Amino acid sequence: MMRKINKRGSMQSTGKVVEIGYGYGRGLELSFEKAVARAREALKAEGFGVLCEIDVREKLHEKLGVDFPKYLILGACNPSLAHQALQREMDLGLLLPCNVIVYERGGRSVVAAIDAEKMLSVVDNSELLAVAEQVNTRLRRVIDSL
Amino acid sequence: MMRKINKRGSMQSTGKVVEIGYGYGRGLELSFEKAVARAREALKAEGFGVLCEIDVREKLHEKLGVDFPKYLILGACNPSLAHQALQREMDLGLLLPCNVIVYERGGRSVVAAIDAEKMLSVVDNSELLAVAEQVNTRLRRVIDSL
Repeated sequence: MMRKINKRGSMQSTGKVVEIGYGYGRGLELSFEKAVARAREALKAEGFGVLCEIDVREKLHEKLGVDFPKYLILGACNPSLAHQALQREMDLGLLLPCNVIVYERGGRSVVAAIDAEKMLSVVDNSELLAVAEQVNTRLRRVIDSL
Repeated sequence: MMRKINKRGSMQSTGKVVEIGYGYGRGLELSFEKAVARAREALKAEGFGVLCEIDVREKLHEKLGVDFPKYLILGACNPSLAHQALQREMDLGLLLPCNVIVYERGGRSVVAAIDAEKMLSVVDNSELLAVAEQVNTRLRRVIDSL
């Protein structure tokens, strides 16, 4: 993984892109815990609040007694963009918030964000396209800054 | 809205279906609070845990100072089905959990569940179809039992 200094003077990763048809992700040479911490910081910097989070490993162990890799779902939301979208499509809460996932893979981590434009392709409402584009632009910056 | 006695001896609503291309919903002659309580009970009865919830009205007021109708997002998850799905598609956390929304409309309520098959149409993995069908069958029973 290459690293370079970004505008804010901190280390910026350019970890290998993970191909996901409905998301944008990168494999990072970081522990799960460090990747989670960086994802939280990056989301905040781009104006996303984390409205809910699910510890998938913990829940699956608690409910089913199975082992699963470390895996966190962060439900991210930019309040202004969510408000714009909900005013155009009241039922859109069925697809909110926008998820960012972090999971361990081979001692390293994968961090990925939903592709909001792809997700909203199931909604037949062209008024949402501009909002989805803005969400994607921000989410890509989040992932690229890790 | 018609009502009939269901098998368990409790009242069952057959509220008017709300057309949502990516979900299955009904308008109910219930207050928002009662609709939320019934949705919680019905989800539990069908094996769904609520892993996270977002009070949309409260969040929008807190972050933007705007007024919005009462609106709750319940992130529902059947642990066994989620585990099956994640084993087939590790990145699927980008689209989990399955949302059920409740919001007020004209003094009454709308309750709707995501159409899991529609949502998973953005994922190119045929192994998920059977799981999505099972999720939809259960979510429709949830909505129909309200």
